[in-house]
Amino acid sequence: MSSTSTMRAAVITSPGGPEVLALAERPAPTPGAWDLLIEVAASSLNRADLLQRKGVYPAPHGAPPDIPGLELAGVVRAIGARVTRFRPGDRVMAIVGGGANAELAVVHEREAIRVPDSLALTDAAAIPEVFMTAFDAAFLQGGLGAGEWLACNAVGSGVGTALIQLARAFGAFSLGVARTPDKVERALGLGLDRGAVGSATELVQAARDAGLEARVLVDLVGGPDLSKALGVLAPRGRAILVGLVAGAKAELPLGLLLSRRLTLTGTVLRSRPIEEKIALARSFEDRVVPLFERGRLRPVIDRVMPLAQIADAHRLLESNATFGKIVLDHG
Amino acid sequence: MSSTSTMRAAVITSPGGPEVLALAERPAPTPGAWDLLIEVAASSLNRADLLQRKGVYPAPHGAPPDIPGLELAGVVRAIGARVTRFRPGDRVMAIVGGGANAELAVVHEREAIRVPDSLALTDAAAIPEVFMTAFDAAFLQGGLGAGEWLACNAVGSGVGTALIQLARAFGAFSLGVARTPDKVERALGLGLDRGAVGSATELVQAARDAGLEARVLVDLVGGPDLSKALGVLAPRGRAILVGLVAGAKAELPLGLLLSRRLTLTGTVLRSRPIEEKIALARSFEDRVVPLFERGRLRPVIDRVMPLAQIADAHRLLESNATFGKIVLDHG
Repeated sequence: MSSTSTMRAAVITSPGGPEVLALAERPAPTPGAWDLLIEVAASSLNRADLLQRKGVYPAPHGAPPDIPGLELAGVVRAIGARVTRFRPGDRVMAIVGGGANAELAVVHEREAIRVPDSLALTDAAAIPEVFMTAFDAAFLQGGLGAGEWLACNAVGSGVGTALIQLARAFGAFSLGVARTPDKVERALGLGLDRGAVGSATELVQAARDAGLEARVLVDLVGGPDLSKALGVLAPRGRAILVGLVAGAKAELPLGLLLSRRLTLTGTVLRSRPIEEKIALARSFEDRVVPLFERGRLRPVIDRVMPLAQIADAHRLLESNATFGKIVLDHG
Repeated sequence: MSSTSTMRAAVITSPGGPEVLALAERPAPTPGAWDLLIEVAASSLNRADLLQRKGVYPAPHGAPPDIPGLELAGVVRAIGARVTRFRPGDRVMAIVGGGANAELAVVHEREAIRVPDSLALTDAAAIPEVFMTAFDAAFLQGGLGAGEWLACNAVGSGVGTALIQLARAFGAFSLGVARTPDKVERALGLGLDRGAVGSATELVQAARDAGLEARVLVDLVGGPDLSKALGVLAPRGRAILVGLVAGAKAELPLGLLLSRRLTLTGTVLRSRPIEEKIALARSFEDRVVPLFERGRLRPVIDRVMPLAQIADAHRLLESNATFGKIVLDHG
């Protein structure tokens, strides 16, 4: 494919509300020697897309500056000269630094993850961000093991629904809260072992009522709630901080941290160097994809919309009324 | 040794100032099947002794409630029926839950650490608390490796002087601050690679001036300084919180924790279960004792005083005028 060919893409015409999103022609990306050129069949939305659209979360170096989209599934159309893992026609999914809401995207072959035959590409597009974040936080960083309890303070969120399913699939137990009864109800349906309506206070109370302590807390909100949520942890417990929607500061109880020997780790995927992104993708393909293949895990999808309706899709995500991912169908 | 025999011990006659310390006769401890009965040649002071004397840090279950002292060196006098590692006459050092400031003490054989022939027992008594705390925090928990930088915000303290020496002996570099120029000067003499007078602000500035970032921060003070000190860490850096003399609360910059993917771990030795204490003692004997044996590490001792002067020794420690350990000679 020559560098002068073009493709259809959703673009951020200027920083602003959903109305700044439009479909446009853009130069097609050119795969490097280790890259796959992917025809994107579906992509899905993340909260970071909303921030990027508003102009407060710019795309990292190397990603298209004005094409949003952080995850995709599609079919390999061309490969670089050094590629060995995939051939044209193979189905893959991936996290990208940006540019997923487009007809074509480029991914390093070792960051691409095979899609099992049993999964539709519109399903696969809903997997990478939430399941890789959850897998990395709870298991690779938190070290959660079978028989142990995982606590989560937003089980109705995308990462929350992935955590619940992963905990069950890996032989662990999950305890969590969500803001509304219907979200807790749906989380219980996904395998949440103990749920309550509320936030950190209710999470700690639910653990006390059940006489249990969590080995790992995945905190998806940050802010003052984090300090309270630490009360759910067993001695030597590990808190993994994944999000900051509730605030970027917290007065931490250092005495509790010391006496219970707790660990708090902040984490983010997007800014990692490529060798870490590859390591996560490889581990995910080895340990998590087989569970999708055999039906023990499934993406949680609120709805599938055409790419042309991306502005409406952003509005829907901003409404906080969804449970599960919003997928964009590029077909 | 019958359970009715007695020994001489320093005792806390009631909670209060140094004047409540007195020598008295107490029942001698009885070794269990896995224990060594040690004739204590020397013990040394820790800040926790001051808190225990004031009545705000009670001895843990199983330790003598009124005999202070958390570390000792001495000679094995009797062994329990299951003991295999030591024989009467062997020289050992150990951390104990309490009771070190006495003629006799009991230690599980796997918590006892051999003392190399090249070390006097008054030197050995100054080793366990600070060097095991430093080794555990920086290397076992922090994962500091050769070629990496360690940062410490109290290099004039006992743990600080141990951290500096361990960093150098293990092939790492150290950066640290102390409150006075003479403490920084002495720390440089022990192998500190870069020093500055001050606290967290000066620590971060010193790192910037040198164009370096630390892999591990061992924070010995806690409080608001901790939030500032985190600025010294490299991406994925690890902060180990060992003390709280500056306060038990800190408003933590969660955004920094996330974007730089930092880890903060609180730690304490005294309350650990025995299997963890044993694991640390074994690792310390394997990896750190040989460095004392060959002279690459040496205890830093301010002075040696007779056990009978324990009240004066407490006063001296409270004055904050010491550099290194105060050792009590039981001879």
